[in-house]
Amino acid sequence: MCDTMPDVIAVGSIGLDTIKTPFGSVKKELGGTAMYSSIAASIFSPTGIVSIAGKDAPKKQLDYLRKRVDTKGLQIAKGKTMEFHCYYEYDMNEAHITKTDLNVFGKFSPILPEEYRKARFFFVGALVPELQMKVFGQMESPEFVVLDTKPMFIQSSRKKLLEAAGRSNLLLINEWEARQLFSTPNLLKAAKAALKLGPEYVIIKKGEHGSLLFTDGAYFSAASYPLENILEPTGAGDSYAGALMGWLAKNGKVTEKKLRKAMIYGAVVASFTVEGFGLSRLKSITLKDIEERYSEIKKITCF
Amino acid sequence: MCDTMPDVIAVGSIGLDTIKTPFGSVKKELGGTAMYSSIAASIFSPTGIVSIAGKDAPKKQLDYLRKRVDTKGLQIAKGKTMEFHCYYEYDMNEAHITKTDLNVFGKFSPILPEEYRKARFFFVGALVPELQMKVFGQMESPEFVVLDTKPMFIQSSRKKLLEAAGRSNLLLINEWEARQLFSTPNLLKAAKAALKLGPEYVIIKKGEHGSLLFTDGAYFSAASYPLENILEPTGAGDSYAGALMGWLAKNGKVTEKKLRKAMIYGAVVASFTVEGFGLSRLKSITLKDIEERYSEIKKITCF
Repeated sequence: MCDTMPDVIAVGSIGLDTIKTPFGSVKKELGGTAMYSSIAASIFSPTGIVSIAGKDAPKKQLDYLRKRVDTKGLQIAKGKTMEFHCYYEYDMNEAHITKTDLNVFGKFSPILPEEYRKARFFFVGALVPELQMKVFGQMESPEFVVLDTKPMFIQSSRKKLLEAAGRSNLLLINEWEARQLFSTPNLLKAAKAALKLGPEYVIIKKGEHGSLLFTDGAYFSAASYPLENILEPTGAGDSYAGALMGWLAKNGKVTEKKLRKAMIYGAVVASFTVEGFGLSRLKSITLKDIEERYSEIKKITCF
Repeated sequence: MCDTMPDVIAVGSIGLDTIKTPFGSVKKELGGTAMYSSIAASIFSPTGIVSIAGKDAPKKQLDYLRKRVDTKGLQIAKGKTMEFHCYYEYDMNEAHITKTDLNVFGKFSPILPEEYRKARFFFVGALVPELQMKVFGQMESPEFVVLDTKPMFIQSSRKKLLEAAGRSNLLLINEWEARQLFSTPNLLKAAKAALKLGPEYVIIKKGEHGSLLFTDGAYFSAASYPLENILEPTGAGDSYAGALMGWLAKNGKVTEKKLRKAMIYGAVVASFTVEGFGLSRLKSITLKDIEERYSEIKKITCF
């Protein structure tokens, strides 16, 4: 990679992850929204990354990233890469975060290289909403922009976050975030409130329970792929988002019908991610692996 | 009702429910597993009830029950009907139980009238597993037996409960119960452990997230019907079970393919139940209402 002009631009954090689960651990491996989403997207479409890492980022891992995606938008700054430590207990539903050192990420200002500004698809991952708005300001004629967030920004920058959501084509949030952001336990009500802000689509991610798509007058309930052995759940949501974007970018104009399929591809790719530690499984999957699980989800939802 | 010999027998509690939600309340209305499941089943097939109520059970409500289902198996005992009080907060995910007076239900011994013993379909609702075994002992040649439980019996009578599960054709439990009963957070692992006990099928109910069917070598993920206005969630699980049984009994030999459809009918009927207080909405739905939502679930899961 990548002389091709990227179709998908993934914006977000890069961190050095140290993660423990009852089944093993990773130590200081590159992870973060931009890593998972860009690598997942690159399975389907040429992808570029906008992020920041420190001079200490492991060369071998950066080299891998450079092979998979265009890294013109990756800033390598003086100082240390963001560091993230967490552990999961046996049920793996909750990440127990023990350390987040922002380091160079604390000074991150996303800058889109000239050629990225003309890209068609943007995944604007969880960032301070002010920075997300800055990304919007640099796009020239985006076809489809997906916005993600995380719980801390609902508390700290709710108003700005709602403004950013209004400028996206698709707001992608999880179940908990939807309930918090729109002050209702009812996901249908939350989605309706989200649609009123401006995006054409809202996707609510529910982890093992699948995901829901809402748009004016339509609704889609996507199943997840059933897994018996989850080794480490970090990056599932970002893999989902990246695969969704990559698949959409590969398949022409976005329609509700295509989004349904893209959500299933997202679920499939996320299902592989959590079967390995860090990026290990995501790195090794093939289109054939993906198509097999896609077909299986068809079978297990048919009645 | 009911000169017809019942096809479905629903066994379980009857109680006088006093329930508050942020949207209203019911006071001393007949509810309980046997009420919800038998009335839901009777939408599709002739149904009989095996339960117990006290002399104080409201005549008008009992008269309604008698119109809908065969009540030869309903014992009216000296003393008071079981009393159940709970309230739901705004998110309605958890019933806060404030009172459970067993009254006559504490002395309940399920006795199947002669003609019920020859029935084809049995829904054995949540009871002390010893009493569930007693019900099994009275069946002559059941075609399909579904067993339910509730959390307290997992703690108090785990071994007996596993034995009863082994004698059922289908174990129907909720997500929390599955995790507890089989000591794993993973639902696929829990279901595999359940299948090893003997039943051909396991269904795990996940409330608003739908339900999952497991059988040897196959899996089905059923969506729920999306609801914006849930007034009172009591009886959803029992309505699901009743509708599933009623629909199966109406449609010949049980196969995995038919079970998939039956689960969707279960989800649809449950979706109506929670749109009203107590039995109110369940009482008024028509087959046309049900078919409409069934078709909608087809549309919202298609990709």
